[in-house]
Amino acid sequence: MRIEAVWKTFHGDLDRVEEEIRHHLHSDAAIIPEVGGYLLEGGGKRVRPLMALLSARLCGYQRESLYTLAAIVEYLHTASLLHDDVVDMAQLRRGHAAANSIWGNQVCGLVGDYFYAMALHLAVAEDSLEIMEILSAATAYMVKGELLQMAHTKDVKTDREQYEGIITCKTANLMAAACALPAVAAGVEGEMKEGLRAFGRHLGIAFQMVDDTLDYVAEEERLGKLVGKDLMEGKVTLPLILLLQHASAADRARVEEVILKDNLEPHDLQEVMLLLGRYDILAACLEVSGDHVRQAKEALAPFPDSEARAACFALADYVIERDL
Amino acid sequence: MRIEAVWKTFHGDLDRVEEEIRHHLHSDAAIIPEVGGYLLEGGGKRVRPLMALLSARLCGYQRESLYTLAAIVEYLHTASLLHDDVVDMAQLRRGHAAANSIWGNQVCGLVGDYFYAMALHLAVAEDSLEIMEILSAATAYMVKGELLQMAHTKDVKTDREQYEGIITCKTANLMAAACALPAVAAGVEGEMKEGLRAFGRHLGIAFQMVDDTLDYVAEEERLGKLVGKDLMEGKVTLPLILLLQHASAADRARVEEVILKDNLEPHDLQEVMLLLGRYDILAACLEVSGDHVRQAKEALAPFPDSEARAACFALADYVIERDL
Repeated sequence: MRIEAVWKTFHGDLDRVEEEIRHHLHSDAAIIPEVGGYLLEGGGKRVRPLMALLSARLCGYQRESLYTLAAIVEYLHTASLLHDDVVDMAQLRRGHAAANSIWGNQVCGLVGDYFYAMALHLAVAEDSLEIMEILSAATAYMVKGELLQMAHTKDVKTDREQYEGIITCKTANLMAAACALPAVAAGVEGEMKEGLRAFGRHLGIAFQMVDDTLDYVAEEERLGKLVGKDLMEGKVTLPLILLLQHASAADRARVEEVILKDNLEPHDLQEVMLLLGRYDILAACLEVSGDHVRQAKEALAPFPDSEARAACFALADYVIERDL
Repeated sequence: MRIEAVWKTFHGDLDRVEEEIRHHLHSDAAIIPEVGGYLLEGGGKRVRPLMALLSARLCGYQRESLYTLAAIVEYLHTASLLHDDVVDMAQLRRGHAAANSIWGNQVCGLVGDYFYAMALHLAVAEDSLEIMEILSAATAYMVKGELLQMAHTKDVKTDREQYEGIITCKTANLMAAACALPAVAAGVEGEMKEGLRAFGRHLGIAFQMVDDTLDYVAEEERLGKLVGKDLMEGKVTLPLILLLQHASAADRARVEEVILKDNLEPHDLQEVMLLLGRYDILAACLEVSGDHVRQAKEALAPFPDSEARAACFALADYVIERDL
């Protein structure tokens, strides 16, 4: 199965998730649906809701509340995007003007807060403390991941373990939650539940690694954000970590110098891009993320072969194939 | 009983709450205890934890988790303070430099997020979906209150009902939650639980009304913030609403003009202060907030007279007597 077939298979379910997302946007504070609608209808791929739908299919879970759970995860993700943009002072998001450049950091900060709180409030109706535990922990971790990332700004000593810790917090835990929630709602326990959680976590790690790699590859138009943005912001992600690890002493010194610079000039980025090519770093990044995709697939071993499991595998493959 | 006696009576319990607050500040993201410690040890009066302690005493609730509940409420309050300062771009908080002026809006925004999520995560251990419901709803309302307030910036048509709606969201709901939580934990139901919730809500409304009134009264050193700050920020609160309601057409036009001005000059504020005096508005504000204090006390009718109830009354009286 290929990813196109997965989207097609879950098209109807994803439409139901959209309805659910729109439904809970209503508020007498008009700015909430305004900002929320802009962001939620701004072309997000709904990877996290899809993960929840896939997990539910594997668990044989078909109750209505599945759509609410999927919407809740997307709300939490949207809240984190709003706050990321505020933190990054972003100008672009998915090729459109970032919400904070339209409504300002203050409004976007508060609407992000609202989505966090509203999503958790919505989850109470699921009548499960374990669901509340998973969601509130995932939210706390996402934020902690951002704070850890800021603490490692321009930190040329950031190692792979620290990096994986950061991206597990900021990205992978929510994806793990997306996969675990339907299992909890379905009453699926033990190695199946843990398998789904591990599938989401490894996929999330791979997803963020590919994202961080694409930062040094993608065409501006294709990804809707600038090339080398992480470098400019002093974010030391997988490509730089592997480059610093593999480069000669002289090249490493030069890369560290660029990372520590306050105002990058075009030739600084070009030089780093050249070194990434010389040491074949992007292929190395793909290998590392591919390993997490492999682990994600292995985590589904407790489930017998099925269309749903094949769809999970297709999603896993897509994570490293997209746009590269 | 006077407020001093209340603080004295609950001194030991409040120390336990402090321990609990400090205990949950620990994190491997070092910035969290750093910012959190600054704010949480920055001289907050712990009115909300005190409300939780008073409510617990009325309900005969003595379990350890009371201190956690009180700490959770203070964490949510602290998160909202952090985000308020970001929204306000505050320079001062309680007479000290506002956290955002030290660590920047980005860090303070994220640490605020963390406190919201961590507080809700902490609450899961209380093993009650009703507690999760109350806390997540109070959080969502707090944020919505801020957004509604922003939507009414420089809105000279803001009426009392809208104003009370805003302050109920942004201030009173969390105080209502502080009072309701121990009742829920104690298994107290019916008119006693609702009475405690109403006590907190009315006290919260009165508290915010007095705060908004003090904005036109307080000495800079005493309250640690500037006089007329709300006017400068275009916040139309109780004093302005009552002034616009009672003033002559000419005076009203002048006040509206000042509210709508972008850069206030000292004489603009002086003029408004003069009119507030001429129409005896601050006394009128005290009357309105006093009415909510009366309703707060009435809400405790289901409880027999006791030291705890007397302490609640003392706290209620303190709310309108402080610094005025």
